[in-house]
Amino acid sequence: MVVVMKKNANENQISRVLFKIEALGSKAHLSRGNIRTIIGVVGDNSNIEPGVFESLDGVERVVPLLGPFKLASRDFRKENSSFSIDGSQIGGKKIIMIAGPCAVESREQLIEAALAVKKAGAVALRGGAFKPRTSPYSFQGLGEEGLKILAEARDIVGLAIVTEVIAPEQVSLVAQYADVLQVGSRNMQNYALLNAVGESHKPVLLKRGLSSTIEEFLNAAEYILSHNNPRVILCERGIRTFETYTRNTLDINAIPVLKSLSHLPVVVDPSHGTGKREYVAAVSRAAIAAGADGLIVEVHPDPENALSDGAQSLRPQEFENLMAELRPVAEAVGRYL
Amino acid sequence: MVVVMKKNANENQISRVLFKIEALGSKAHLSRGNIRTIIGVVGDNSNIEPGVFESLDGVERVVPLLGPFKLASRDFRKENSSFSIDGSQIGGKKIIMIAGPCAVESREQLIEAALAVKKAGAVALRGGAFKPRTSPYSFQGLGEEGLKILAEARDIVGLAIVTEVIAPEQVSLVAQYADVLQVGSRNMQNYALLNAVGESHKPVLLKRGLSSTIEEFLNAAEYILSHNNPRVILCERGIRTFETYTRNTLDINAIPVLKSLSHLPVVVDPSHGTGKREYVAAVSRAAIAAGADGLIVEVHPDPENALSDGAQSLRPQEFENLMAELRPVAEAVGRYL
Amino acid sequence: MVVVMKKNANENQISRVLFKIEALGSKAHLSRGNIRTIIGVVGDNSNIEPGVFESLDGVERVVPLLGPFKLASRDFRKENSSFSIDGSQIGGKKIIMIAGPCAVESREQLIEAALAVKKAGAVALRGGAFKPRTSPYSFQGLGEEGLKILAEARDIVGLAIVTEVIAPEQVSLVAQYADVLQVGSRNMQNYALLNAVGESHKPVLLKRGLSSTIEEFLNAAEYILSHNNPRVILCERGIRTFETYTRNTLDINAIPVLKSLSHLPVVVDPSHGTGKREYVAAVSRAAIAAGADGLIVEVHPDPENALSDGAQSLRPQEFENLMAELRPVAEAVGRYL
Amino acid sequence: MVVVMKKNANENQISRVLFKIEALGSKAHLSRGNIRTIIGVVGDNSNIEPGVFESLDGVERVVPLLGPFKLASRDFRKENSSFSIDGSQIGGKKIIMIAGPCAVESREQLIEAALAVKKAGAVALRGGAFKPRTSPYSFQGLGEEGLKILAEARDIVGLAIVTEVIAPEQVSLVAQYADVLQVGSRNMQNYALLNAVGESHKPVLLKRGLSSTIEEFLNAAEYILSHNNPRVILCERGIRTFETYTRNTLDINAIPVLKSLSHLPVVVDPSHGTGKREYVAAVSRAAIAAGADGLIVEVHPDPENALSDGAQSLRPQEFENLMAELRPVAEAVGRYL
Repeated sequence: MVVVMKKNANENQISRVLFKIEALGSKAHLSRGNIRTIIGVVGDNSNIEPGVFESLDGVERVVPLLGPFKLASRDFRKENSSFSIDGSQIGGKKIIMIAGPCAVESREQLIEAALAVKKAGAVALRGGAFKPRTSPYSFQGLGEEGLKILAEARDIVGLAIVTEVIAPEQVSLVAQYADVLQVGSRNMQNYALLNAVGESHKPVLLKRGLSSTIEEFLNAAEYILSHNNPRVILCERGIRTFETYTRNTLDINAIPVLKSLSHLPVVVDPSHGTGKREYVAAVSRAAIAAGADGLIVEVHPDPENALSDGAQSLRPQEFENLMAELRPVAEAVGRYL
Repeated sequence: MVVVMKKNANENQISRVLFKIEALGSKAHLSRGNIRTIIGVVGDNSNIEPGVFESLDGVERVVPLLGPFKLASRDFRKENSSFSIDGSQIGGKKIIMIAGPCAVESREQLIEAALAVKKAGAVALRGGAFKPRTSPYSFQGLGEEGLKILAEARDIVGLAIVTEVIAPEQVSLVAQYADVLQVGSRNMQNYALLNAVGESHKPVLLKRGLSSTIEEFLNAAEYILSHNNPRVILCERGIRTFETYTRNTLDINAIPVLKSLSHLPVVVDPSHGTGKREYVAAVSRAAIAAGADGLIVEVHPDPENALSDGAQSLRPQEFENLMAELRPVAEAVGRYL
Repeated sequence: MVVVMKKNANENQISRVLFKIEALGSKAHLSRGNIRTIIGVVGDNSNIEPGVFESLDGVERVVPLLGPFKLASRDFRKENSSFSIDGSQIGGKKIIMIAGPCAVESREQLIEAALAVKKAGAVALRGGAFKPRTSPYSFQGLGEEGLKILAEARDIVGLAIVTEVIAPEQVSLVAQYADVLQVGSRNMQNYALLNAVGESHKPVLLKRGLSSTIEEFLNAAEYILSHNNPRVILCERGIRTFETYTRNTLDINAIPVLKSLSHLPVVVDPSHGTGKREYVAAVSRAAIAAGADGLIVEVHPDPENALSDGAQSLRPQEFENLMAELRPVAEAVGRYL
Repeated sequence: MVVVMKKNANENQISRVLFKIEALGSKAHLSRGNIRTIIGVVGDNSNIEPGVFESLDGVERVVPLLGPFKLASRDFRKENSSFSIDGSQIGGKKIIMIAGPCAVESREQLIEAALAVKKAGAVALRGGAFKPRTSPYSFQGLGEEGLKILAEARDIVGLAIVTEVIAPEQVSLVAQYADVLQVGSRNMQNYALLNAVGESHKPVLLKRGLSSTIEEFLNAAEYILSHNNPRVILCERGIRTFETYTRNTLDINAIPVLKSLSHLPVVVDPSHGTGKREYVAAVSRAAIAAGADGLIVEVHPDPENALSDGAQSLRPQEFENLMAELRPVAEAVGRYL
C-alpha cells in the first residue's frame, strides 16, 4: 500500500501516518519530495484497510496493491488448477462444453436438450431449477421438481449437471442433485451463499457480477477457496456498460487477465455475454482463441417457446454447427474440444 | 410491449408473432409501413417476457414498457407513502436523519456515536453488526454481539435502529433488535433475502445496487411489497461509473425520477455516494434540495481508527455542522429537519 | 508518481527503474519490503509519462498522482476565479443563469426566448448556430445567419451571448458575435479547438465530455489556460452511465470535487443532465445547493415544435417558476440569483 | 419510430401526436389498449427527431428504430465492402495487419519499426505525427516532420501509411503523405473533421469513441460516406467501463454486430483495447476468431524508451511471434494473414 500525502501536508500529519503504520505492525518507508511526500507501507499488509489511512488529515489518496486474494492467485499456485467434473478434466487441454436450457421447464424439454447437446459433444448439462428473476411476477423455476428432472437427465444421458443455487439454505439440497453448483452474477457478492458453497465441497461455477471488477471477482472466489474448497471455475459472462445493442459487453480482456492473475479455470458464457443468438458463434470462437478453458452455452429445443432467455438460446442444430466451427479454432490454439 | 420487425421480415414471420401474442392472451395491433412493420401488444402484458418475441425469426427488437412493478408504482398509489419509524414519520414534511458508524465496533464507540447524532438531531442510528466485505479476510462485524449493543444504544439514547441483514436465515434474529432492516447494495437482487424481509413485516431500507437501473431497483422493492410489507424505503447510494476520483457517482437524477415513478420514500446516502468526508456536506444539501425524504450518513467518533469506511465518516462535530447547514436548505424546499 | 514492482521483480529490473528515473531528471526513493518493492519518483515529474515505467519489465503498475494540470488547480490559485461576462460577475456570490433554446431556429423564436429569460432573471442567452449532431441528416444549425440573430437579440434584449463553436477555423467568426464561446461535450478533447479558443481571449464555457473523468476535464481546461486565456467556465452536464431512464447521469459529486481541485467557476446543465423537462427543477435546486456558480438551462417558447432537444426544454413560464424556486435555495447556501 | 403514450394520456394529447406525425409527412398507426395507447410512425421517418414527440404532453417515451445511418448499413449494400490500400485488399479473405509505433519519434525509430513489421508480414505502417494528448504538456508529435519521415519509410520499406489527422485544416497536408487517414477516438464526433476527411477521398480508418455506442459509431461513418467517400474502415479499440485493470474494455461483441449491421470492413486495435503488452496476443487471436478484417497493433523497437504507449507496444520479436500465432487462427475461420 502506498500513502500519498497532499502537497501542503505538514509534519504533524506525516507523523500521524507513520505512527499509524507502525501501530498496525507494518513498516513505513518515507519519500520526501520538494512537492509531495509519499509513504510506502511495507510488509504483509493484506489485512490493513486503505480507509485507515484515507481518513487521516493530510492524506490525498491511498493506493492499494492488487489483492488481497491469496489462494486464488498465481503466486499461491504457479501451475493451472485442473480438476474433474464427473470424469471430464477442466483446466487441461480439452475445452469443456457446458450446454442446455436457461431453465428446466419440463422433463421432455430437458431430456431433449440433454440428448442434443450430448450428441454434439457437450460434457455437462446446464439448466436452472431455481431462477433469480428481476420481477417477482416472472417464472421462478420448478424448484426441487426441476432438480429431480436434472438428475434423471444425468442418468439417462450421461452428462454432469451444472445448476444454480440462490440461497445458503438450499445448498445441501442442490448438492444432492448437482455435480457443479453455479453461483449467479447477482449473487457474486452474496457472502452467506459463497460461504455455504465453500463448505459444500462441490465444484463451484462462479459467475462474475454484472459490474464487478476482476479484483472483486477473484476476492469472491477467495471466499469459496478459504473454506478449503479448491474447485472453483471462474465464469466471464459479460459486464454492464453504456452499450445497449447487446445485452451485456463480454469482457474478452478478462480471459488472459484472469489466466495471468489466477490459476483457476476460466469459462465464458457467450449467451449472456451477447444476449442474441446470432452473435453467440462469433464470440464463442473468440473466447476459445483468447484462452478460455470452456464455454457455457444456452441451448433450447424450442427457443420460441422458452420461458426465459429464448432470444439468446441456440437451437440444437445451431449448437451442433457451433461445435463444428469451434474445433479448428481450438486446434489453432493447441487445444481440443 | 412493442415488437419491431426487421425490414425484410416476411408474412410468415409476422403471422407467427401475431399468433404468439394471441396465444398469450393479449391483443395485437399491426402497423405496416412501406419499410417496416410494428406490432403493438395491447392488454395487461406485465407477465409476458420480451424474450418470447425476441426469439422469433424476423423480429428486430422488442420494446418493453417500464415495469412490471405495480405495488411500487405511482399508478398503484397516487399519494406519497408515509409511515412511522419508532415514532418519526418518514415520507412527510420532516426530513429524517439516520446517522452512525459503518460498523458496530464496541459498546463505547456506538454509544458515543449515538449520543452525538441524537444531540445533533438524528432520529435513527445506523450501525452494521453483519458486514458484507469484499475480502474474506476483512473484519466481518460483531454479529449478534453487535445487535445487542445496538439494542442497548436504543434503550439508553432513544433512537430507532437501522441495521443490515445479509442472509435470509438471519432475518428473524436481526428483526428482534432492529427497527428497520437494511438490505445492502450487493444484495439488492438477492431474492431469497428480499422475500425474507418481505415476510418480516419490519420496515426495510433497500439500497440500490451498484449498477442497478432504476427499473431494477423498483422491481426489487416490488419483491418486498408483494409479501404485504408496504414499508419500504428506497435508498440511492451512488452507482458505479468510469469516474474513480469519487468512490461512487451519486445519481441525483434518481431522486426526482423515483419520486415520480413511485410513492415510496427516498433517502440518500452521501457517505457511500462520494466516499470522501469532505464532499458529504455538499451532496447532502443537494439531496435535500432535490427532494429526498431523508439521509443516511456515516458518523464515527474517531474515524482515524474506524475499522471500515473511516475516510467517508464524519466526526460528531462535523455532523452537527452538517445539520446546521441542512436546516435552511430543507426550509427552502418547504421541509424541515 | 509511484512505481510498484511485481512481487518477483529482480535486482536488475529494479536497477533499470532507478536508472530511468534519474535519466529523466527526477529522484528515486526506494522502499524494499519482504514482499514487494515500491519506488517513489520525487521532484517535479509532471512531464514524465507513466508509460515510461509501465513498459519496463518487473513493473506491476505505476500510480500517477493527480494532474498534471497546473494553471487550473487550487495550488496555482487559492481563491476562486471570478470574472465578468458582459457585466455580470461569475464565480462570486451571484449565481449566473444562462438560458435559451438549444438551437437558434428563427429570429422570432430567439427574440421571444430572450425576452422571456431576461424577464425571469437570466443574465445570458444560450442558443446554438452551429450544432454538432449525431446524424449527418439532422438539422445542423443556421450557421452565421444564427450568429447574426444572436447578436440582434443581444442588442434588443441586453443579454450576454453564449454559443457553441465546433471547429478551429470558426473561432474568429463566432468570437465576433459571442460573449462566451462554448466548447461542447463531444469536442472536450478536440485539442485543435481548445488551442483555438485559448488563443481567442474570449471567456470559454467548457462542457465536460460524455465519459471524461474529472482529471481529463481539468486537463482540457489546462489547454485553454495555457494560451493565457484565464477565463474558463467548467460545465458539468451529465455523464454516460448504464442508466437509460434519464438521458445522462448528472454527476453532482463533480461540483464539490471541481471546486476543491480548481479555482475555476463551475456551472451545471440540468437540461442535458436529465434529458427530461420534468426533472430539470429538482436537479437545478440540487446543483445550487451543492455549490454551483451558475446554471445553463434550455428554454424554448414552443418546445413541441423545437428542432432539437424539445423534451428537455422548459417553457418560458416553467423557467419563471424555476427561478422562483431557486431563489430560496440560493439564499440557503449564502448566494443569490 | 414508436410513440408510447402515458397510461393516463387523454384524447387531446393523442390527437396532438397524430396531427404532428401527419404534419411531418409520415403516417400514424394507432394501437389503443385498455391500459395504454401506442402509436407507430410509419414511412421514411429517418429525418424526424424523436424529441419532436418526446416534448409533447402525454408522451411517455419515444422508441427510435436503429439508425438513421443508411449508406453505412447492410440494407444499403448487402455484400461486404472491400477496397485496396496501396495494393492490399481490405474486407476480403486476407486479414490486414497494420503495425508500427504510437508516435513517429525519429527517422531511425520509424524505419527500424517499419522494416521489422514488414518482415513479419504487416501490409501497412502506423505512426502518429500529430498526437492528441490529454495534457498540453505532453509530447504532441513531430508534425509535418513526422509525415515526411513516414513518407520516407514508405519509399524505403514499401508499406502503406496510416496516420492520424486531428484538425480539418490539416487534412490536405496529411493526405499528401498518408495512404489512410486515421480519425482518433476523441475525434469520432468531431463533425468538422469527419466532413473534411469525407471530402478528401482518401480511405479513412475511423476509431470508435471511448464511450460511443455502435449506433453513434455508424452514424459517424455515415458523415464520411455522405461525402461520397465510400472507403471507411471501422476500428474497435476498446470502450471505457468501470474496469480499470485494463486500459479499456475491448468490445468483442462489436465485431459481429458491426459486420451484421454494416458492410464496412472492421479492424481491431488490441493495443489500446487492453493497454498492456502481455494481453495483446490473446485479444488479437480473439479478434480474428470473431471475424475482424484486420488488426492495428503498436510495435516499437524500444518500448522502454517510447515517448508514448510503451506499455502496450510489442517489441519486433514479439510481433513476429504474434504473426505466427495468428496464422492458424485465421485459417481456422477461413481467412489468411
